[in-house]
Amino acid sequence: MARRLVVVGADAAGMSAAAQARRLTGREEMEITAFERGHFSSYSACGIPYWVGGQVADRDRLIARTPEEHRARGIDLRMSTEVTAIDLDRRAVRVRPVGGGPGEIDGPLPGAAGEERWEPFDLLVVATGAEPVRPALPGFDAPGVHGLQTLDDGAALLRTLDRGSALRAVVVGGGYIGIETAEAMVRRGLSVTVLDRGEEPMSTLDPDMGRLVREAMQGMGIEVHTGPGAEVRAVRLGEDGRPRAVVTADAEHPADVVVLGLGVRPRAELARAAGMPIGEHGGILTDARMRVRGLEGVWAGGDCVEVYDLVAGGYRHVPLGTHANKQGQVIGSGVGGQRAAFPGVVGTAVSKVCELEIARTGLREKEIRAAGLPYVSVVVESTGRAGYYPGAEPMTVKMHAETGTGRLLGVQVVGREGAAKRVDAAAVALTARMTVDQVAMLDLGYAPPFSPVWDPIQVAARKAATAV
Amino acid sequence: MARRLVVVGADAAGMSAAAQARRLTGREEMEITAFERGHFSSYSACGIPYWVGGQVADRDRLIARTPEEHRARGIDLRMSTEVTAIDLDRRAVRVRPVGGGPGEIDGPLPGAAGEERWEPFDLLVVATGAEPVRPALPGFDAPGVHGLQTLDDGAALLRTLDRGSALRAVVVGGGYIGIETAEAMVRRGLSVTVLDRGEEPMSTLDPDMGRLVREAMQGMGIEVHTGPGAEVRAVRLGEDGRPRAVVTADAEHPADVVVLGLGVRPRAELARAAGMPIGEHGGILTDARMRVRGLEGVWAGGDCVEVYDLVAGGYRHVPLGTHANKQGQVIGSGVGGQRAAFPGVVGTAVSKVCELEIARTGLREKEIRAAGLPYVSVVVESTGRAGYYPGAEPMTVKMHAETGTGRLLGVQVVGREGAAKRVDAAAVALTARMTVDQVAMLDLGYAPPFSPVWDPIQVAARKAATAV
Repeated sequence: MARRLVVVGADAAGMSAAAQARRLTGREEMEITAFERGHFSSYSACGIPYWVGGQVADRDRLIARTPEEHRARGIDLRMSTEVTAIDLDRRAVRVRPVGGGPGEIDGPLPGAAGEERWEPFDLLVVATGAEPVRPALPGFDAPGVHGLQTLDDGAALLRTLDRGSALRAVVVGGGYIGIETAEAMVRRGLSVTVLDRGEEPMSTLDPDMGRLVREAMQGMGIEVHTGPGAEVRAVRLGEDGRPRAVVTADAEHPADVVVLGLGVRPRAELARAAGMPIGEHGGILTDARMRVRGLEGVWAGGDCVEVYDLVAGGYRHVPLGTHANKQGQVIGSGVGGQRAAFPGVVGTAVSKVCELEIARTGLREKEIRAAGLPYVSVVVESTGRAGYYPGAEPMTVKMHAETGTGRLLGVQVVGREGAAKRVDAAAVALTARMTVDQVAMLDLGYAPPFSPVWDPIQVAARKAATAV
Repeated sequence: MARRLVVVGADAAGMSAAAQARRLTGREEMEITAFERGHFSSYSACGIPYWVGGQVADRDRLIARTPEEHRARGIDLRMSTEVTAIDLDRRAVRVRPVGGGPGEIDGPLPGAAGEERWEPFDLLVVATGAEPVRPALPGFDAPGVHGLQTLDDGAALLRTLDRGSALRAVVVGGGYIGIETAEAMVRRGLSVTVLDRGEEPMSTLDPDMGRLVREAMQGMGIEVHTGPGAEVRAVRLGEDGRPRAVVTADAEHPADVVVLGLGVRPRAELARAAGMPIGEHGGILTDARMRVRGLEGVWAGGDCVEVYDLVAGGYRHVPLGTHANKQGQVIGSGVGGQRAAFPGVVGTAVSKVCELEIARTGLREKEIRAAGLPYVSVVVESTGRAGYYPGAEPMTVKMHAETGTGRLLGVQVVGREGAAKRVDAAAVALTARMTVDQVAMLDLGYAPPFSPVWDPIQVAARKAATAV
């Protein structure tokens, strides 16, 4: 008789796992069932700001594979079905139909919520994702205050914007989601204010690099308020129950629409309740094969797990679609009996706000200090093309290296065209634990339209090499 | 008394060496003299096609540092002075002023050629560069037949083009210089024919990838003729002694101007005559510190040396400005008593023809077979951005990996925006001798404007991993 694989959560990690397991196992050998409490499967959450901003015309463009497509490939995908408990001893999950379905997102969900029942599994994949941080403060649960984590969130925000009265947007949080949302609002012609209680926006960068982002955003007409005074206290609502302003520690910022970009935390309560190991950042702990530690035949992946940090050691929570896809692939291979592994991350992230590209990999100064490593930092200005080639745009590269050994510890880049993906070479060098001397001598692509004769990353590495 | 460093050749390698040596040594400790037989120092030869094409307005934009600037920094740079012999026993070079100087390139050289004399050295740097391959065939030395190796070459070509009668250009050779020159001619409104006796243009790629370049060039209106029938036999001249056509094995291609893009060979006769070791590709042989093998206090770098191939082992001739600059930096550090090293190359090269970006790193199939390695190859189609993001352009990635070990052996990319510098991550992975499994799991930058959720390089690596 076929064994049964149950997948909890049908987005990047879960469905990558299911699809890869399906490729490697016959239907007579493995039955694959996936439960998804939402209305959509396998969509690009990262694309939502671009849908809101109008660069992506249509929600369905963000859906990589529909439930029907998954089913056609032999995965029994049950949409609008929430898993409410996992019993590892009985090897079963408790599920509850939540009703509704795609297309119903604008109104009440017609499908009645059903009875709970238990579904058995032989093998289990937990891919429950992450949930946005939403302050438990007055007014933050009002209509017109939007998260931007799901397609439903995106649709709700678009409905608010289509009301036509939304002229002023306040984005709470100046991280990736925050700045991408700020761009979307600018594109829609709103005046935009970004609030971040950190020293500078983009706290995934060192503050001096974050300042470059702030200055560029201000140059685009975006208001940016940071520091303790920018910490939010409440959303002040009008008589219609919709936002009028965001109240911070030291000001009140008029707002017709509020978008939350405060980041996400692992959605791991189900796993925790089942007795799975949870790390200090709230994510499920796995080994490199994405097997939940200490359990047989149970995997976890995507935004609900913690990942190994190859640079600092230890575990972090890094919710990114690219990791979720890779982890899903590794899980599916493991289900299929192969020995794939997800080795960990070096902390690479790229983003943009309008024409400004922002990238980081490795450790920030704060993280290096926390790791107790002696280090030097250098900052250089360079260009993305040979200085004489048309369209050579400036970029700033900051690099950290370990004193003594010269080991590369981190790179941040802020600039225009061609700045973001510049960190990839550094990300690979971090993975290989290269020194800045080695980075300076790497054989990177050079031609005048693509790079100065020393790539900006190598300009920084040369300078760092003289300082370590 | 100060020791004397003599540098032969004042372009990228020579002057990088001189400048770095100057930084590390006091003037009372080291006298630095450089001899340059041409009229320009420290210029970007790689930029010449863009000057000819009009993207770079002015020759002087290509000059990174003038002779005066070098002199102001304490380097005694003697322009228009050819080194005609090196005596390693007496530790002296024979020099001969050749007359002329910047600005005189359009007319006869006014400075009289001087008497030869000997100049002593304690330490020597040989940076004599490369010379373009020019067929010893009828008509190839006529006016209107141009190399494109030096600023003087560029100026001469521009004079031909400014005669106004140049309507048809034939470019002989479909490598980097050839295609960049073809773009320049297209930009100037000429009809352009490219001839290459290889199977496809861009023989630094595998033929199937070269075919993509051919098709794109043809789509731009460039005529491309390849194969044995396209081997040149002569330039047919008119009564004015200028080109009328390029005669090949099986056709005659009308031409008002002919540009040579047949590549370069090391200019190493001086070194050979002095008894320095020369490799099988005609370049000077050095160690990783760029010291000429078997000699004390003698370095060589830039287009006149062979470089170690980190992927295949053995030595190659890879004339690129980026290597020359790095080698010069290493030499200067060595002169200054530091232990810098140039570890070798992995064979990275990027180029473009109009909007088409072309990149390679590592080994081609031909080179893998020559090295006797068992291998698999995969080709994938991907895009430079998330598929749903505006401006997502297609790119083709070809990847080679060693059967059994899975070691990455080479990557080629042909595509539009963002294709070329994609090879950098692969170049670092080659340097670190990573497997395709490792490449597939690298933490590369992902966001919809910059990459699909699996970077195109990783799409290829995934596919290769299933095949090795």
